[in-house]
Amino acid sequence: MAIKVYGSMFSTATLRVLLCLAEKDLDFELINVDLASGENKTPHMLSRSPFGHIPAFEDGDIKLFDSRAITQYISRTYADKGTDLITKEPKKAAMESVWMEVEAHEFDPVTKKLAWELCMKRFLFGQKGDDVVVNAEKKKLECVLDVYEARLSESKYLGGDSFSLADLHHAPMIKFMMDTQMKEVFDARPCVSAWVVDILSRPACVKIFSVPAY
Amino acid sequence: MAIKVYGSMFSTATLRVLLCLAEKDLDFELINVDLASGENKTPHMLSRSPFGHIPAFEDGDIKLFDSRAITQYISRTYADKGTDLITKEPKKAAMESVWMEVEAHEFDPVTKKLAWELCMKRFLFGQKGDDVVVNAEKKKLECVLDVYEARLSESKYLGGDSFSLADLHHAPMIKFMMDTQMKEVFDARPCVSAWVVDILSRPACVKIFSVPAY
Repeated sequence: MAIKVYGSMFSTATLRVLLCLAEKDLDFELINVDLASGENKTPHMLSRSPFGHIPAFEDGDIKLFDSRAITQYISRTYADKGTDLITKEPKKAAMESVWMEVEAHEFDPVTKKLAWELCMKRFLFGQKGDDVVVNAEKKKLECVLDVYEARLSESKYLGGDSFSLADLHHAPMIKFMMDTQMKEVFDARPCVSAWVVDILSRPACVKIFSVPAY
Repeated sequence: MAIKVYGSMFSTATLRVLLCLAEKDLDFELINVDLASGENKTPHMLSRSPFGHIPAFEDGDIKLFDSRAITQYISRTYADKGTDLITKEPKKAAMESVWMEVEAHEFDPVTKKLAWELCMKRFLFGQKGDDVVVNAEKKKLECVLDVYEARLSESKYLGGDSFSLADLHHAPMIKFMMDTQMKEVFDARPCVSAWVVDILSRPACVKIFSVPAY
């Protein structure tokens, strides 16, 4: 049975899972969930993802939700396929875990607000973003990326010498930010900038980000 | 060398790590970080935890930050000691991961705001909490715990049949909520209520929560 992903190409969380599947060279079926009509809140989807978020995931008899839990499942279950995304050595795995948590709690909240103000408000409601909010969040992003710059000046990837889930989890939102004025915040930091180029040029990223969202 | 935790008994994130160490029967030294004087933002602490959060953690030559990454490190490194907190079987581990993410992204943000409005504002600034915010967050908590009730009606613990990190990560904030008017939201849901009693009566919880914060 094929792996099924219930999600949307507009969702960075869905893209996180698709990137992981691409790194693992796994086939999958993407079942589009129409966020505009609220399909994610229908009983059918709530039975798969009870908080109403996408993506939901199915692999044979296992059904999961939450993108970061799904990528961990894929990485562990298909450890021998494609790119090794989680190391088994506890000390190295610990650093990967730290930076996965940093993505979820420091990077994603700030960039999500920026994505909302800079793009989604206009796209969904035809409204301009709030400059005060954008400037405040930009300052937060600068502080976050200062810590990333320090980390990436001493190790090629966030978790260590190898690309891992810690890096992969950032890719969809970084791709999004590169098409906004926030690109300059990344570009101003040499190690961050080199890391961004490295990640976005990976074959899995090129493949998934070339799939049209419509 | 003893395990060192740089944190505070006032911090639910610190308590999360201490509970994990207690479940594993591991000795540790707690080095108090004085949040009131901003010690968490000093160069010494920022070198251990670059975003300025507590706890920071040291075990021999490994230094980590972020409570949830630390508990995963402890659970994997000391797998054979004390309570087994992460299963090695990928399908079961996946469900534990899902509910660890739910704690971090659904449960913690709501209860953190409630803790701020109901307790911390008064404790730190002598201000009363905002009833409008409290009522809005209470409604969110009810929705979150409805999903928990459904989950816990079909499995004893969040990750499955056994207590795991997915449950442990909730314990400090649950303990906090039990001393507030939010207790009724937990008590109104039989499976959630039984789970709360079960978790808080574990020897590790009784031990850690009996340590005075002053």
